[in-house]
Amino acid sequence: MSDPIFKKIEVVGTSTKSFSEAAANAVTKAAETVRNISWFEVVEQRGNVMEGMIQQYQVTVQIGFRLE
Amino acid sequence: MSDPIFKKIEVVGTSTKSFSEAAANAVTKAAETVRNISWFEVVEQRGNVMEGMIQQYQVTVQIGFRLE
Amino acid sequence: MSDPIFKKIEVVGTSTKSFSEAAANAVTKAAETVRNISWFEVVEQRGNVMEGMIQQYQVTVQIGFRLE
Amino acid sequence: MSDPIFKKIEVVGTSTKSFSEAAANAVTKAAETVRNISWFEVVEQRGNVMEGMIQQYQVTVQIGFRLE
Amino acid sequence: MSDPIFKKIEVVGTSTKSFSEAAANAVTKAAETVRNISWFEVVEQRGNVMEGMIQQYQVTVQIGFRLE
Amino acid sequence: MSDPIFKKIEVVGTSTKSFSEAAANAVTKAAETVRNISWFEVVEQRGNVMEGMIQQYQVTVQIGFRLE
Amino acid sequence: MSDPIFKKIEVVGTSTKSFSEAAANAVTKAAETVRNISWFEVVEQRGNVMEGMIQQYQVTVQIGFRLE
Amino acid sequence: MSDPIFKKIEVVGTSTKSFSEAAANAVTKAAETVRNISWFEVVEQRGNVMEGMIQQYQVTVQIGFRLE
Amino acid sequence: MSDPIFKKIEVVGTSTKSFSEAAANAVTKAAETVRNISWFEVVEQRGNVMEGMIQQYQVTVQIGFRLE
Amino acid sequence: MSDPIFKKIEVVGTSTKSFSEAAANAVTKAAETVRNISWFEVVEQRGNVMEGMIQQYQVTVQIGFRLE
Amino acid sequence: MSDPIFKKIEVVGTSTKSFSEAAANAVTKAAETVRNISWFEVVEQRGNVMEGMIQQYQVTVQIGFRLE
Amino acid sequence: MSDPIFKKIEVVGTSTKSFSEAAANAVTKAAETVRNISWFEVVEQRGNVMEGMIQQYQVTVQIGFRLE
Repeated sequence: MSDPIFKKIEVVGTSTKSFSEAAANAVTKAAETVRNISWFEVVEQRGNVMEGMIQQYQVTVQIGFRLE
Repeated sequence: MSDPIFKKIEVVGTSTKSFSEAAANAVTKAAETVRNISWFEVVEQRGNVMEGMIQQYQVTVQIGFRLE
Repeated sequence: MSDPIFKKIEVVGTSTKSFSEAAANAVTKAAETVRNISWFEVVEQRGNVMEGMIQQYQVTVQIGFRLE
Repeated sequence: MSDPIFKKIEVVGTSTKSFSEAAANAVTKAAETVRNISWFEVVEQRGNVMEGMIQQYQVTVQIGFRLE
Repeated sequence: MSDPIFKKIEVVGTSTKSFSEAAANAVTKAAETVRNISWFEVVEQRGNVMEGMIQQYQVTVQIGFRLE
Repeated sequence: MSDPIFKKIEVVGTSTKSFSEAAANAVTKAAETVRNISWFEVVEQRGNVMEGMIQQYQVTVQIGFRLE
Repeated sequence: MSDPIFKKIEVVGTSTKSFSEAAANAVTKAAETVRNISWFEVVEQRGNVMEGMIQQYQVTVQIGFRLE
Repeated sequence: MSDPIFKKIEVVGTSTKSFSEAAANAVTKAAETVRNISWFEVVEQRGNVMEGMIQQYQVTVQIGFRLE
Repeated sequence: MSDPIFKKIEVVGTSTKSFSEAAANAVTKAAETVRNISWFEVVEQRGNVMEGMIQQYQVTVQIGFRLE
Repeated sequence: MSDPIFKKIEVVGTSTKSFSEAAANAVTKAAETVRNISWFEVVEQRGNVMEGMIQQYQVTVQIGFRLE
Repeated sequence: MSDPIFKKIEVVGTSTKSFSEAAANAVTKAAETVRNISWFEVVEQRGNVMEGMIQQYQVTVQIGFRLE
Repeated sequence: MSDPIFKKIEVVGTSTKSFSEAAANAVTKAAETVRNISWFEVVEQRGNVMEGMIQQYQVTVQIGFRLE
């Protein structure tokens, strides 16, 4: 059997600047321990607020990578 | 009974620049009349278009704050 | 019958920089062939990853325009 | 900051006649206490039954209005 | 144990006139064989089209009734 | 291969009177340019409000037709 | 054909004490008339309130049983 | 009132071979006790695994039939 | 127009003991400032964890009350 | 601007044999009029029944292709 | 880059007593192998039934913990 | 505490032939590294297309296994 198989893990990235950077941070962190990442999917966007200002953008992503 | 209780309100922020700024504008506006905001959740992202260009990013957020 | 009628099409925009630009690119492309676009709705956000970095933000939008 | 901001509230209108009238009743009631309502979205349709007949159509709507 | 228990069945009503009548027809038909119906919930709205005209409105409802 | 194939398009019909008429208007308009329409599915119901009154019922429908 | 087949019915259990007891009551009632129940799935949790207190927890469950 | 009315029941078919056969088995079993079945809708696909192999494909279908 | 109209607000109750108590706490708190509450609906269940133990059950409920 | 842009269309394929063939038929038909198809997503699976047997498997797919 | 990153895993806890205890058991088990757990989210509630009684409450939770 | 606990992982299986084989391939691959797999749930079905033909069926499954 040689059909490719992928696994997906769920990671929450954060950023003080934007949703896009939060997603990028999640991927960068996952890449420290997982090889062959090929895509991500956003599943949730939220954030923390302090003194009436967004303090942290949070993006939950599913990260897909090919199993070897 | 001293278990904390939170309320959530739904606000639509807008921005001419990005989804992240639209969310931030929603939170800033809510903070004018509500105290103790601690988090937000994105529930919808859309926008207006004029002459083939995005004129306004719109982000609907649920904003959570602790009741006193 | 003069009640306005709109059509929605689904387009996937991409960007190397952000979700907001990916959405804008989708709308700009659609405007090349469709007139009277008045709004868009985000239905999915995902992206491609290469060597542990986000290479492409992808935003699927539904684009609404008035039928003449 | 001059980007417009909207708030959404959730109201359940009822009618003995139709879903459309139930939605209209929800909006009319909300307009007694809220200004600048500009749109509504249906989120649920249900109703009460008595002696095998629909006695009440119930439509839950989210009502959006611009904050001043 | 005397806590009331309800059962829900799913019925598709149809009408040549409106969604509201289609729902009413579903309830009326269910009441021929089920007693104690107390509420309904709309779960789907669709219809048939012939020669460019809606020929039949179809409303799927869940109908709840108390078990004796 | 002779298995029938259908296409679905998404149209937003409007009406000043009811959700049912808004859906009918969407189908009527689509039938001006598409042949063999056989069904529709409601995917969203909303509307515009002006001076505290519903000014326009809006129904988004998916319209299915057989490809020749 | 000997592959097992199951049917699912939808029942709303209630309890004055907890969601867990409401689910248990739904299953107990269903077992009076249905044999071979093997699992349940929670599909909704709600309840009635009177004078500011929860008077009744309501849990809608889908109950699965093997057909003989 | 002569508008047709349909009922939907939910059945889980199983198969050792495929999702398609599991759906077919569900319909065949339902047809033993229900007349006038005209359509089905897939609502869930899952299965059992034993010793690292799929032992049983399970497909939950809603089965619609006209009430007489 | 005398058809009853209801409003829904969203509240997050918490408890150190159970989901059921968390929901009850949300309702009790809401009843301090809102009259005529008649039902609630669970929309989310989550919680905080500290040192490997659930420290707080959190239940988000929509609370419905009749407008006078 | 050279970021690639994709469009998605929705097609219902049918087959007398299986869900997999129904999806394949949808893609084959779409390829008669659309170039550069690169992926599809299943959004619904249903079918017609006649005399207690599945007569037609129906699979609704979204088909994505790059705009030139 | 010092923005915190979290991972989420999905665990099914069981209990013979209640949904709340099932969730607690899931968290306790996860804490045997994962450090820094800070929250959980309920994604499914179901259970096994034997001889007409709930034998096991099952709660699927997503468990979030900070990556070091 | 002896209540059984399960973990779920998400895997994407692929096949050139069918959705059923793609799911089977996902389970077989997971079984290389995980013991005690007892069930799977389909969460997404999609695929790649090349030259107007489905080249690869992709099925995302959640795979559940008992923790020891």
